[in-house]
Amino acid sequence: MILHTTHLRVRYAETDRMGYVYYGNYATYFEVARVETLRACGITYKSLEDAGILLPVIDFHIRYFAPAHYDDEIRITTAISQLPSARIQFQYQTHRGETLLNEAETDLVFVDAASGKPMRCPHDIMSKLSVFFEGN
Amino acid sequence: MILHTTHLRVRYAETDRMGYVYYGNYATYFEVARVETLRACGITYKSLEDAGILLPVIDFHIRYFAPAHYDDEIRITTAISQLPSARIQFQYQTHRGETLLNEAETDLVFVDAASGKPMRCPHDIMSKLSVFFEGN
Amino acid sequence: MILHTTHLRVRYAETDRMGYVYYGNYATYFEVARVETLRACGITYKSLEDAGILLPVIDFHIRYFAPAHYDDEIRITTAISQLPSARIQFQYQTHRGETLLNEAETDLVFVDAASGKPMRCPHDIMSKLSVFFEGN
Amino acid sequence: MILHTTHLRVRYAETDRMGYVYYGNYATYFEVARVETLRACGITYKSLEDAGILLPVIDFHIRYFAPAHYDDEIRITTAISQLPSARIQFQYQTHRGETLLNEAETDLVFVDAASGKPMRCPHDIMSKLSVFFEGN
Repeated sequence: MILHTTHLRVRYAETDRMGYVYYGNYATYFEVARVETLRACGITYKSLEDAGILLPVIDFHIRYFAPAHYDDEIRITTAISQLPSARIQFQYQTHRGETLLNEAETDLVFVDAASGKPMRCPHDIMSKLSVFFEGN
Repeated sequence: MILHTTHLRVRYAETDRMGYVYYGNYATYFEVARVETLRACGITYKSLEDAGILLPVIDFHIRYFAPAHYDDEIRITTAISQLPSARIQFQYQTHRGETLLNEAETDLVFVDAASGKPMRCPHDIMSKLSVFFEGN
Repeated sequence: MILHTTHLRVRYAETDRMGYVYYGNYATYFEVARVETLRACGITYKSLEDAGILLPVIDFHIRYFAPAHYDDEIRITTAISQLPSARIQFQYQTHRGETLLNEAETDLVFVDAASGKPMRCPHDIMSKLSVFFEGN
Repeated sequence: MILHTTHLRVRYAETDRMGYVYYGNYATYFEVARVETLRACGITYKSLEDAGILLPVIDFHIRYFAPAHYDDEIRITTAISQLPSARIQFQYQTHRGETLLNEAETDLVFVDAASGKPMRCPHDIMSKLSVFFEGN
């Protein structure tokens, strides 16, 4: 299992009239968390795209328990609990201090940019991720 | 059952490097669709807030089948299939022409802004919505 | 001179903690206004890009007089007061009812996507726009 | 004179179809840079708002020289070159490595949230900032 923690501070632009982080902005936070998790595993999402592999989100589910406010420092814990196949799932928990603000999952698929077709997880990605699952 | 259709055109700002609408931006589109659906039922979300009632989203789930692109005209069909209680659910389908791009649900709760506590759906909202469920 | 009016309604996502439209979101509104102004002149910005011509903004200046709020219906008047050369300027005024909320200008340049080099305004764009300046 | 440097990494959500940071998103970057500059001077923008003082932007001008791309690490240098009065000006330069991407200014005014009226810069803000101008 892969676990990574990302720290973010809420920007003014991300709040709404209620003074909360707008519910749709967590998608952006999770993208940041996901990219940093992959980077910690030695995978740069940008180089993946430069190599002609896209990774669009096909499923996003989030349950909100409490709002984040302007200038809050929040902490996103990202988990990859299974090795990818044609699909890769990320799980997220957002905290402010000890308070769990929300939890979410995203499913992404590997797509060959040239053909637009789904593909299996590339071999070098798989070998970089599998290190974290050995012995489990 | 309440059904309402909202038409939107994709803005440049809403696209990403893949040329697609960024996956998080559908949350904004659905907010527009939800507000227009309520307006069609005689309910202004702004006046709800001005009356001290908040309606935060507590659950958002979306499944993406195909992307929308810049300048696409998209059509969101919003359904309220059950009368609200302390919670109200909206269901969405996004189409471009005949192509179903995604489907989603949001659950929202009524919250008393002064106390921050959940509350039941206010009586006048309920009576405006119940007209659409009579005889079903 | 070309004049075009665009009507927009403020989305919840576009407001901030002050309850105002976040100051950066007018850039998006002006992009919508600009694209609709060109469309009214027979020019689709998307087809321009599909033909390998980019039109990045190189200068943006806005003066804010009053804020827009959630659910406000605002009206953007866009003007092109000079025929383009290598550059095209758009001027904007945003009103809510009779109240002038802000005024702004953007300068954009024509860029050949393949070479990344600036270019003069393409001939067919020029001829579509010049109709509106004849006899002046 | 006050000078502060802020480091940011470009998020996927902030790019557009050209693969560049959308031109309007620099407003958000500059807000982050401005808030961090004030924080470095001992001023928390949030506590300012909590004390009933708003600081809306009334003028924003940006000149773009080169785009930032996805995953770029950018550096914003923020300057306050004059002590505030009823107004405070921030100047920004955005670099990627040695390349100057853009430069900008924002003018903000102090507003009493209760009355909605402009006010002079509060005394404690002035004294915190003036330390950096002494001896000049």
